[in-house]
Amino acid sequence: MPFINVKLAKGRTAEQKQQFTEAITKAAAQILNVKEEWVTVVFDEYERDNWASGGTLHSIKFGEGFGKMGAE
Amino acid sequence: MPFINVKLAKGRTAEQKQQFTEAITKAAAQILNVKEEWVTVVFDEYERDNWASGGTLHSIKFGEGFGKMGAE
Amino acid sequence: MPFINVKLAKGRTAEQKQQFTEAITKAAAQILNVKEEWVTVVFDEYERDNWASGGTLHSIKFGEGFGKMGAE
Amino acid sequence: MPFINVKLAKGRTAEQKQQFTEAITKAAAQILNVKEEWVTVVFDEYERDNWASGGTLHSIKFGEGFGKMGAE
Amino acid sequence: MPFINVKLAKGRTAEQKQQFTEAITKAAAQILNVKEEWVTVVFDEYERDNWASGGTLHSIKFGEGFGKMGAE
Amino acid sequence: MPFINVKLAKGRTAEQKQQFTEAITKAAAQILNVKEEWVTVVFDEYERDNWASGGTLHSIKFGEGFGKMGAE
Repeated sequence: MPFINVKLAKGRTAEQKQQFTEAITKAAAQILNVKEEWVTVVFDEYERDNWASGGTLHSIKFGEGFGKMGAE
Repeated sequence: MPFINVKLAKGRTAEQKQQFTEAITKAAAQILNVKEEWVTVVFDEYERDNWASGGTLHSIKFGEGFGKMGAE
Repeated sequence: MPFINVKLAKGRTAEQKQQFTEAITKAAAQILNVKEEWVTVVFDEYERDNWASGGTLHSIKFGEGFGKMGAE
Repeated sequence: MPFINVKLAKGRTAEQKQQFTEAITKAAAQILNVKEEWVTVVFDEYERDNWASGGTLHSIKFGEGFGKMGAE
Repeated sequence: MPFINVKLAKGRTAEQKQQFTEAITKAAAQILNVKEEWVTVVFDEYERDNWASGGTLHSIKFGEGFGKMGAE
Repeated sequence: MPFINVKLAKGRTAEQKQQFTEAITKAAAQILNVKEEWVTVVFDEYERDNWASGGTLHSIKFGEGFGKMGAE
């Protein structure tokens, strides 16, 4: 505890996920008063065909592929 | 807001997901009193080995592969 | 199947939730090729203290209470 | 109802998932007072790059690949 | 790991939840090859206004209140 | 995007949640290459009757009430 689930577009490297995990885990330990070893972080990565906002799939909005293009 | 997560068997086309997203998003805007651009829809697609009902995996119930066969 | 989880701010009536459920369920049956009785919809309602966007809790952004005020 | 979501490291066989599903479903029927056919179980399987505990991705802690090595 | 999320109608006692947790945890240890202390189980309990199947909220299908009445 | 769901024991103040939200959101912007306004954070708070580890509900392990006592 806590258990943190991060849903995001596919395309981040393991290094980015590791850095983000570390930042979250430290913040949880300091602010939420838990031990670092209690914190679990899991990532759910989404293809653009499986994420939509404003009524439109991101594969249609931004094209196929990944990365920061427009409002993803 | 709202954030809508749709868990379903693999096998729908991007076109079906787009149509469903549109329908959900419009319904949310009309009925729940939100703007369309606030609505997020994400799809989690499942292999039949990872979905079970009544105590039996769907890969055993319906065979491998996808699509509407029996009670999926 | 499908299993649809709707996360949203507290404050909708049972009637709104029923209408939204109906709309989603019909759309699923027509577009995703499933029977209406297979569709499950569950609502997770959030206090403004438990929903944040852009780094700020909605209780701070919009005040306590519920309803459509600003960008929720 | 109930709807049971199992998040775990990739690497279990369909047979293990079937046995676990059966065990959960029977336990639900006996203890929670539901019919077996109401119980749904879905598995989310994670690569080690997408699961972290104590601030470290499991791909870093345990190496690439799957299976029971160390504290996974 | 694993992390198991059980979504169900409100109305079970702490005793039932404890028994079910034990059964799941033992089954996970035996079948999925994990240690019991790695298994986390969390329950999300739903009011009937927040759970719908076949297009109808359970508060409409089964009335207000909880417990095993009809197909819940 | 991203959408971050934090499941934790009940008992944190709105101030703690706000600080944690800020920390996560900034880390996401810096490390994952997204804009702060795209980041959503939602908290699911659990009673000890609804969270179990190692086969035992936390209400049994730690007693009723909240806060950092033992391994929560």
